[in-house]
Amino acid sequence: MQSSVRTEFHRLPKRGSHDPATIHAILDAGFLAHVGFVVEGQPFVIPTLFGREGDSLYLHGSAASRMLHQLEGGAPACVNVTLVDGLVLARSAFHHSMNYRSVMAFGTARIIEDPERKTRALRVISEHVIAGRWEAVRAPYEKELKATAVLEFTIEEASAKVRTGGPLDDEEDYALPVWAGVLPLRLTTGAPVPDARLAAGAEPPEHVLQYRSASEPRP
Amino acid sequence: MQSSVRTEFHRLPKRGSHDPATIHAILDAGFLAHVGFVVEGQPFVIPTLFGREGDSLYLHGSAASRMLHQLEGGAPACVNVTLVDGLVLARSAFHHSMNYRSVMAFGTARIIEDPERKTRALRVISEHVIAGRWEAVRAPYEKELKATAVLEFTIEEASAKVRTGGPLDDEEDYALPVWAGVLPLRLTTGAPVPDARLAAGAEPPEHVLQYRSASEPRP
Repeated sequence: MQSSVRTEFHRLPKRGSHDPATIHAILDAGFLAHVGFVVEGQPFVIPTLFGREGDSLYLHGSAASRMLHQLEGGAPACVNVTLVDGLVLARSAFHHSMNYRSVMAFGTARIIEDPERKTRALRVISEHVIAGRWEAVRAPYEKELKATAVLEFTIEEASAKVRTGGPLDDEEDYALPVWAGVLPLRLTTGAPVPDARLAAGAEPPEHVLQYRSASEPRP
Repeated sequence: MQSSVRTEFHRLPKRGSHDPATIHAILDAGFLAHVGFVVEGQPFVIPTLFGREGDSLYLHGSAASRMLHQLEGGAPACVNVTLVDGLVLARSAFHHSMNYRSVMAFGTARIIEDPERKTRALRVISEHVIAGRWEAVRAPYEKELKATAVLEFTIEEASAKVRTGGPLDDEEDYALPVWAGVLPLRLTTGAPVPDARLAAGAEPPEHVLQYRSASEPRP
């Protein structure tokens, strides 16, 4: 991964990183990407699930997807993955902030046509979103593969931004009688909701019961 | 709000809506927007907090922010707000999905120069993110207002997409011995973490203790 004017840090450089391990860890902790692309000068931002392998992000959707058609020809794209970790509540309005981990990646995508590579990429996405699921379910039929477009987005450049910790107030404001601190936020799971037509006696498997959103802040 | 080729639904139109009430409800349930814009043909996607008032979204940041400088001149922008409600686990890999609420809004932004309007917009953002906070903290100084850029993004067109409910499997797959259903996901708060320099005896106020992420799925 390279760095250029697209990923230079203009402000607060201490929050920024080009370290591949940091970038990969954030991408692996998320499963929802916001993909930006341009059609005749108009920017579009579309949310989509993804999987990561090395510096490749796999995206998938209907073979009729407008986003995938726009991207598959190698148009410039930007992928953002952001995890919210908490609201930073300061003593002054000005110093309020958010704790987060975010990656902005630039690159281009190519469509994967080969059925074997396509299936493998779909497996990467599936395991990225919920590990253990792929082996438990019916694999794609050929006609389902044909109805699915799978793209490999190759990261050319990326940067990470991370904010952690409490508020940083003006020195004179510490005397104010205002509660300040962090309100942690994280994506958590509720109890699994069985499908109405579930076979009698079927219990949620370990990969569902043990699922922990990877976006939970690291201890 | 209008509808055009930018916001037409190409697939699964039953998931889509141009209803302003639906769009506003999703925007109000979120606090993080992904803003897309174009610089010399290159798309950028940047996450940012926002507040809503009517068909205006207020964005703010450092007066030195690259994103805000790009947008303030009225360049075409796309704002996406997406809330994740659950993983939809089907009996086949192909029918896996996600429950979500998402708004894609197109429009342009203008910088707010007037200090009174600027302060009011900052208050809208603050109350959107955590209601009750603004009154509890020190208001912005003039120099802080000057160091902050506030933009009003006017929604020209928007569309909402919502998926709810369980998996929709192929009829012959319902006999498979696979657990299927929904794994609910939501953004939840942890216990407030007091700042290390908090005045002795200061307790978290109601607006912190009672905070519920608006992104929680409606009952």
